[in-house]
Amino acid sequence: MIGQSNTVVSTHTLFEVTDQPLSVDDLVEVVLTEGDGAVVTFVGTVRDNTNGRKVVALEYEAYAEMAEAEMHRIGVEVIEKWKLHGIAMRHRTGKLSIGEISVVIATSAPHREAAFEACSEALDLLKARVPVWKKEYFEDGEVWVGQGAG
Amino acid sequence: MIGQSNTVVSTHTLFEVTDQPLSVDDLVEVVLTEGDGAVVTFVGTVRDNTNGRKVVALEYEAYAEMAEAEMHRIGVEVIEKWKLHGIAMRHRTGKLSIGEISVVIATSAPHREAAFEACSEALDLLKARVPVWKKEYFEDGEVWVGQGAG
Repeated sequence: MIGQSNTVVSTHTLFEVTDQPLSVDDLVEVVLTEGDGAVVTFVGTVRDNTNGRKVVALEYEAYAEMAEAEMHRIGVEVIEKWKLHGIAMRHRTGKLSIGEISVVIATSAPHREAAFEACSEALDLLKARVPVWKKEYFEDGEVWVGQGAG
Repeated sequence: MIGQSNTVVSTHTLFEVTDQPLSVDDLVEVVLTEGDGAVVTFVGTVRDNTNGRKVVALEYEAYAEMAEAEMHRIGVEVIEKWKLHGIAMRHRTGKLSIGEISVVIATSAPHREAAFEACSEALDLLKARVPVWKKEYFEDGEVWVGQGAG
């Protein structure tokens, strides 16, 4: 099984692909431990334009099992590098309207610097490595955009 | 009135001191606009230790009117510098238990880089300038800590 040798020991982790609406408070609750003074979250949302062209909706598709395994691997790397107490990543799939949340990442640490750096880095790694595809719906057509875009 | 000449024109702002529990999702909703692809939040929480000494609770006191005016000024500065669409800061007061949220900051922007930088900077400015005092309760005593600590 992919990533088995790298299992996160912390119980304060979560790596999930879901078609349900996302809550930021839920992920804060997952990652927070009594030793933490800081949680940083990134919330990705559906923007009404891309490169100046009006967007009316976005659709996300993921190979869920592979995406969750890759998020897990990223979680292990980021926890070790930044000495985090917890990390969670939840990506939504399906067709989303403007303003809806597509992804949430949360990192927890004793102090704020590590939580900020780790959250930003986890997001970059997610965009580079996690297999999620995005379809942009414009007023006059639609186009699939590869992993790593946006 | 302090800060009147610097009034934030965006309606996607909030600067508040409250004795009620804090929700991260509430602040995300305040700052998010249709032109945003990114919201970053910082969530400050009550940690069970400080410099290795066990903490059992924290108490925050603020001069609310001054604190809100200073958060407003910081918001104006950070919005202008990072071209944000929204920013919100809500600080809780009163006696909090381990794991409770003491402060939430949320920033929204079209792209993630500005949202991260702005959130981190707003937090540094809040700690440096906003008049909030903290009492640390230890197992064997308590001590008031000035603005800017922790």
